[in-house]
Amino acid sequence: MLYIVGHKNPDTDSICSSIVLSHFLDAIPARLGDLNPESEFILKRFGVMEPELITSAEGKELILVDHSEKSQSLEDIDKGRIIGIIDHHKVGITTSEPIIYIAKPLGSTATIVGELYFKGMMEFIGGKNRELKGDLAGLLLSAIISDTVLFKSPTTTNTDKDIAERLAKIAGIEDINAYGMEILKAKSTVGSMKPEEIVNLDYKEFNFNGKKIGIGQVEVIDINEIESKKEEIYSVLEEKINKGYDLILFLITDIMKEGSEVLVLGNREAFERTFNVELKDKSIFLEGVMSRKKQVVPPLERYYKNK
Amino acid sequence: MLYIVGHKNPDTDSICSSIVLSHFLDAIPARLGDLNPESEFILKRFGVMEPELITSAEGKELILVDHSEKSQSLEDIDKGRIIGIIDHHKVGITTSEPIIYIAKPLGSTATIVGELYFKGMMEFIGGKNRELKGDLAGLLLSAIISDTVLFKSPTTTNTDKDIAERLAKIAGIEDINAYGMEILKAKSTVGSMKPEEIVNLDYKEFNFNGKKIGIGQVEVIDINEIESKKEEIYSVLEEKINKGYDLILFLITDIMKEGSEVLVLGNREAFERTFNVELKDKSIFLEGVMSRKKQVVPPLERYYKNK
Repeated sequence: MLYIVGHKNPDTDSICSSIVLSHFLDAIPARLGDLNPESEFILKRFGVMEPELITSAEGKELILVDHSEKSQSLEDIDKGRIIGIIDHHKVGITTSEPIIYIAKPLGSTATIVGELYFKGMMEFIGGKNRELKGDLAGLLLSAIISDTVLFKSPTTTNTDKDIAERLAKIAGIEDINAYGMEILKAKSTVGSMKPEEIVNLDYKEFNFNGKKIGIGQVEVIDINEIESKKEEIYSVLEEKINKGYDLILFLITDIMKEGSEVLVLGNREAFERTFNVELKDKSIFLEGVMSRKKQVVPPLERYYKNK
Repeated sequence: MLYIVGHKNPDTDSICSSIVLSHFLDAIPARLGDLNPESEFILKRFGVMEPELITSAEGKELILVDHSEKSQSLEDIDKGRIIGIIDHHKVGITTSEPIIYIAKPLGSTATIVGELYFKGMMEFIGGKNRELKGDLAGLLLSAIISDTVLFKSPTTTNTDKDIAERLAKIAGIEDINAYGMEILKAKSTVGSMKPEEIVNLDYKEFNFNGKKIGIGQVEVIDINEIESKKEEIYSVLEEKINKGYDLILFLITDIMKEGSEVLVLGNREAFERTFNVELKDKSIFLEGVMSRKKQVVPPLERYYKNK
């Protein structure tokens, strides 16, 4: 049986892309962890069931969405058979057999899924030529809004905006901005969450030249929501850092200020050299840095590669 | 400037896919080495100019076609910027930035290019919505025939056949089989070639779990054409093997008999274990083995991985 699955600590893009692609490919939408409050809000809003929780790849055919790195996938991913990848991140895997790979440098995987639909390309990836109804269009729209932080992230392209507008029409959403603020607020319920929950909300592990790096991110409408919890978050990360990590970064991204407060643990030099800054404290505010994928991962990977 | 480039020791699929994609993407078609006799025959047949020979990636934007492994690309590929990959092989690269990646497990890269055209998907990869004229359709058809050995290779899919038929109509080729035999004969001019030329005709280097492996292939209509040169080919490979290789294989594929005589140098045990055979001589005939990509590379890579 074919499963379409997003990354660990699933975000809205992983959840929604998996659900919508599964509709066209007769596959089972799957997830590797609990929904975050934003995804819960969105699925409820459009009345769509959550994907199936899976814990093993054994005996499964898999299409990975919104990631390609094994470290972000199932622990026993090698026991399954990856037949495809649909993603908007860098290429983070090599395979021993030819697979379907569709990637583009866009703001979200949902944008690619939307484009595949509007361009009649579902058959190209082995899917059926079906209709995209309002509920599923709403999910894709929400995922684009979430991943591009309502088109404010520097990863945003014109394609993201175009596809979002076309999806909004199908979903019957007249004011994308107003709906977007609803989503961002749902995302921003960190005020009521425990520090462990905040850390794990969107935490990804990378392997850069043999070193284990963790990069978490939380997006808030106002950084003050979380200011009082910074110390506690730092303590949670301190417990993690000794588990084989060379470096852990945690980005508290302020959507309105358009920048991120970055907590740094472990190899502080790697961080300072990469971003050409001097760390005086446990954290530093980086103006304009909103995208882990585009603004944090590539320079850090280059640093570890050339070190 | 954007260059579209196939692999080292270019075959017809690399050459033709590069030329046709460049037409849609306003790019410069490029090659990394001399044309083989088959590709020469085909470009002459359709009156199309050969791609530009390039020797450095420095300062270039690149789309790789028909390969993704760095070992098959320009030596200084890291000095260029890979913005896309269109391929039908396994994923053999990781990147530090998001790129365009279009891959499918089909018989040739040309089939994917043809499908992108017929499904109106050139815009999806950043190209223009242009017409595919007879000459370029002829190139793609020829590349499909070449890579699938006139649809006899086990890599052949129904999509390869469908796309080939649609291309043949545009190219004005009524009898695909008759034209295919012409191509295979052009490919099979090995009788008049020097052993070094035969070895380098279609020789690829791989990195399996840190070990360097070379796998060459030549396709002949009748194995007797080359029988008298087997010893000389072996000698050429013997000169290579000490250059850091763990194993070199050379496949003399008999199109009519549908199998390959495989010359084995270096780690003979790796070969014997992988293919579950006993080597009594310098070479062995493997019934039904025609595809390096599908029947040789994957089991060999698994062997090295699990060893």
